[in-house]
Amino acid sequence: MFYLNIKLDPWGHMDISDYSKLYELFGIEPIDTVIDDLRVKHRFFERRVVFGHRDMGKWIKNFYSGEKSIVLTGFMPSGHVHLGHLMVIEELKYFQKIGAKVRVVIADAEAYAVRRLDRDLTIKYGVEYIAHALAWGLDSLETDFYFQTNYSEDYYRLIHFFSRKVSFNEMEAIYGELTPAKIVSALTQVADILHSQLKEFGEYRNIIVPVGADQDPHIRLTRDLADRFSNELGFVRPSSMYHKFITGLDGNKMSSSRPDYAIFLLDDNDIVAKKIAMALTGGRATADEQRKLGGEPHKCSIYQLYLYFLAETDGELRDTYNDCISGKVLCGQCKKRALEKLLILLNEQRSRFRDVVESGVIDKVVEKPKF
Amino acid sequence: MFYLNIKLDPWGHMDISDYSKLYELFGIEPIDTVIDDLRVKHRFFERRVVFGHRDMGKWIKNFYSGEKSIVLTGFMPSGHVHLGHLMVIEELKYFQKIGAKVRVVIADAEAYAVRRLDRDLTIKYGVEYIAHALAWGLDSLETDFYFQTNYSEDYYRLIHFFSRKVSFNEMEAIYGELTPAKIVSALTQVADILHSQLKEFGEYRNIIVPVGADQDPHIRLTRDLADRFSNELGFVRPSSMYHKFITGLDGNKMSSSRPDYAIFLLDDNDIVAKKIAMALTGGRATADEQRKLGGEPHKCSIYQLYLYFLAETDGELRDTYNDCISGKVLCGQCKKRALEKLLILLNEQRSRFRDVVESGVIDKVVEKPKF
Repeated sequence: MFYLNIKLDPWGHMDISDYSKLYELFGIEPIDTVIDDLRVKHRFFERRVVFGHRDMGKWIKNFYSGEKSIVLTGFMPSGHVHLGHLMVIEELKYFQKIGAKVRVVIADAEAYAVRRLDRDLTIKYGVEYIAHALAWGLDSLETDFYFQTNYSEDYYRLIHFFSRKVSFNEMEAIYGELTPAKIVSALTQVADILHSQLKEFGEYRNIIVPVGADQDPHIRLTRDLADRFSNELGFVRPSSMYHKFITGLDGNKMSSSRPDYAIFLLDDNDIVAKKIAMALTGGRATADEQRKLGGEPHKCSIYQLYLYFLAETDGELRDTYNDCISGKVLCGQCKKRALEKLLILLNEQRSRFRDVVESGVIDKVVEKPKF
Repeated sequence: MFYLNIKLDPWGHMDISDYSKLYELFGIEPIDTVIDDLRVKHRFFERRVVFGHRDMGKWIKNFYSGEKSIVLTGFMPSGHVHLGHLMVIEELKYFQKIGAKVRVVIADAEAYAVRRLDRDLTIKYGVEYIAHALAWGLDSLETDFYFQTNYSEDYYRLIHFFSRKVSFNEMEAIYGELTPAKIVSALTQVADILHSQLKEFGEYRNIIVPVGADQDPHIRLTRDLADRFSNELGFVRPSSMYHKFITGLDGNKMSSSRPDYAIFLLDDNDIVAKKIAMALTGGRATADEQRKLGGEPHKCSIYQLYLYFLAETDGELRDTYNDCISGKVLCGQCKKRALEKLLILLNEQRSRFRDVVESGVIDKVVEKPKF
């Protein structure tokens, strides 16, 4: 999940067939065109959780040719970390494992200016994101974290630079009704994506940005601005890849704003159990009917948990799917198994999270804004 | 001269009577209300070159009570330094002499983004401004200089902060048609004026900003934003004072954009002589007529030079005035004396300027942007 707050979800809640529209409408390429180029796979690609990209083939080729390569993403620190965020952290972990540099921005400027959130709370949440990223296995020595409001002059200079070469109409087309806050935040986001190309930040010209599909307009703006600064700053277009959002337990996008339907990484076990018990499934009206007709996993929020996190092998995922549609395993049993697996995952993560917090490593990996 | 580029001169070229309209229309106070509070006078106040203010009485009172006090101004590095800029430098020198802190911003971000000037040239001009300020007598150890694109995160954070509490309509009312560049630059300007109140920048809450009258809308925006951050950051409203622009040799505002009618501090002597020879005066059609009717100093660009720089005592200025209106001294003779005095001033300044440049002190007082 990228961090922009702007409401820009022209596709609403999409099932897999809707995603294919993006290919036609916006020129996003199907992920299938590059999966084979990856020497190390990840279930997110193979299960089409990551479903599309722009120029990812170029990124992969450059990466394997030994070019300095980076993956950049951002988190909007507007609430506690849930499984939707963990998906992005898992993507970062994958890229770090195969050898790319990882850089993560905490979008505290935008949280303050556009979302109008409490400043202290924002910083606290930002730290929580970083702690979870480290607890999930990102290397504290190899991952760069920064707060938007606490970086260096060479980064902020880009915001001024970009403002020269972007028009009001262009931004309005992307962001709808503009405010000064939206304009400053949007240009800050472009700086977040492109600054790593500068010598001062490691000169990583091979950049990939994992985002949700709704963020593609920002990616296009960023690519346009990269073109406009190709002479002046030597910028090249970043690549991007697009993931689906994990579904919340009510069947809509998982979001901190509807906490009853999100699984937060720090939820107590009994809270998780209650949420799973209440979760929307693809079950039928009666058990008999379900035994006869089978369940509908594509409508099931529990199946999503298997798809994203709980089914580690494709075989296990296929079995779960087949057991459902054949009517062999009913929702109660399936939920029970999901809960068991989920609690193991969460308990391990919480334990590592506590270790990270107690170790004091956060203060070594990121400097918090003074105010 | 403050640095904002935005066209906002509702008053056009004003003579002294027009300035009084500002008092009624915008609530600017006449400078007369505070001159007596200043223990050390300056000819700019007494000659009404500085003609108005907002809350300057408060600033003076706080200053003499021993409160930390600062004067902040900015230069748009869009060309070589001329006498109009020297007037502002002289104001700063006065404030430094009486004991206030002086801080000067080079508006290179705005020069780049709004004025769309060449970046390298802008930085070069910025350095020229600083060198002239030091050559004119600002203390290199006591004056802070910075480039907008090369400051610290605690300053840039303010731009994000301010963006939250300002509306599009408010800015449009001040700046006319908005562009992303204008919005970012305007908020940067507010940060320039207010950042000195932060602990990180010396905690100077008693701020005065000398500007041209056309910049007053920006001062009002800044004062409003100071109010809106009074709780969060403890900001208080800055004071301001307003000067008239020195007239160019064609009778319009002196400006780098009409170089033939401006006296640049680095102009060669023969160039200066030619410009003075061509300068608009308040002379009559014939010498005879002038001897009979007298000249019109309020229409004369040479008289302006006396008013601002060449007449050091009020007695000398009065004599020059009387010699003109009585027809006793004609334009040729008056120009000759002006040229002599001007060349002395310029030659001395150029000599000190060269010393400053050769001393390498610039690199000690300001860090130039990396790109």
